[in-house]
Amino acid sequence: MANDRVTIWTLDWVPDGPRGFVRDIRLRWACEEAGIPYRIATVSFDGRETNHLDRQPFGQVPMLEDGAIRLFESGAGLIHLGGKSDILMPADERGRAETIQWIFAGLNSLEMVTMPWVVLQWSKEDVPTISGWLDNRLAQMESVLADREWLVADRFTLADLVIADVLRVDLVRKHGDRPASEAYVARITSRPAFRKAYADQMTHFEEADETRKEDDNG
Amino acid sequence: MANDRVTIWTLDWVPDGPRGFVRDIRLRWACEEAGIPYRIATVSFDGRETNHLDRQPFGQVPMLEDGAIRLFESGAGLIHLGGKSDILMPADERGRAETIQWIFAGLNSLEMVTMPWVVLQWSKEDVPTISGWLDNRLAQMESVLADREWLVADRFTLADLVIADVLRVDLVRKHGDRPASEAYVARITSRPAFRKAYADQMTHFEEADETRKEDDNG
Repeated sequence: MANDRVTIWTLDWVPDGPRGFVRDIRLRWACEEAGIPYRIATVSFDGRETNHLDRQPFGQVPMLEDGAIRLFESGAGLIHLGGKSDILMPADERGRAETIQWIFAGLNSLEMVTMPWVVLQWSKEDVPTISGWLDNRLAQMESVLADREWLVADRFTLADLVIADVLRVDLVRKHGDRPASEAYVARITSRPAFRKAYADQMTHFEEADETRKEDDNG
Repeated sequence: MANDRVTIWTLDWVPDGPRGFVRDIRLRWACEEAGIPYRIATVSFDGRETNHLDRQPFGQVPMLEDGAIRLFESGAGLIHLGGKSDILMPADERGRAETIQWIFAGLNSLEMVTMPWVVLQWSKEDVPTISGWLDNRLAQMESVLADREWLVADRFTLADLVIADVLRVDLVRKHGDRPASEAYVARITSRPAFRKAYADQMTHFEEADETRKEDDNG
């Protein structure tokens, strides 16, 4: 029954650049890890700044829908999915709290630095204040990853999903020599659930290419 | 009994600039709202980049300690405190999920833009890519706040605590004309629990001035 599934909202199409990195992948990946059934729904790429502000005040994706619950922010969606399966998030208080801690570490301490830096790289701007901040944070994360295989509970959790997803961005991955981080990203993104989520996102946008081509020809 | 209290870790001293904005205030404020007993503990400002990496891999504060649970990341600390009191976070699944959603909106979508912009302002760098991003996000948040008094459950929650704490930064508050955001920040920060937390943080650092003076004289 369709109602048993969660719905992950993403864009109907994006250009080549962001493919494989649109954040619906975080929710797809979590569902694949835990075997949570889901379906994909879309909002239009054209007009995305304003066409779904009633559901997402910043005009971004993804959104997650689960019965009466509608959430934006991938971090919030992940914690919601984590509550459905201890494959994603340990059920004990400490394991749960530490998983949430690393989700915030990824999305606030780490991505707060990587994302502005990446945006500035795209626009070919060199801003030493930001790149110095990046180097510092990536070095700190390298130290953490040099010491352990998993971030929480000696096994894969949403903590690894988020940290690996932030670190796997091409420009970040190629920046500097950080062997522990590179090995970690390679290992976490070789998980079948990530590969499935990634392939499905690529297919989703490739299929949209066909539709757009037909529209152009029509 | 001391064991009944949570412990909020902050720095022993900071210069004037960050006073009133060190992130332990988020945890102090939440405890004050909910009547959760807490004590303050400190790590040294001098050497902060490396003196507590075993507890906080980025050398930041705050940390939260509650029995066997030790957390860094203010967002994770807030969700942990929210689990102790529905004054902070509604106990129903939807209210809880929406509160968490806005905590992430504050710390990822919003603070990811305000913080790099503020850091660049400090170093007197004008980076149009970042300031354009800021203007866009603040305008989006202004639209949200024009429509409602509270973000979740028609009452104060951690959602308001986080969004107001991100928006109340002086440089952000003075940037542009955003009457709904300004009224919101003024209203939320006039709450007795915020004023108590703010006054206590100021006193904490002022007392440390005395100690440092004595050290200099000794």
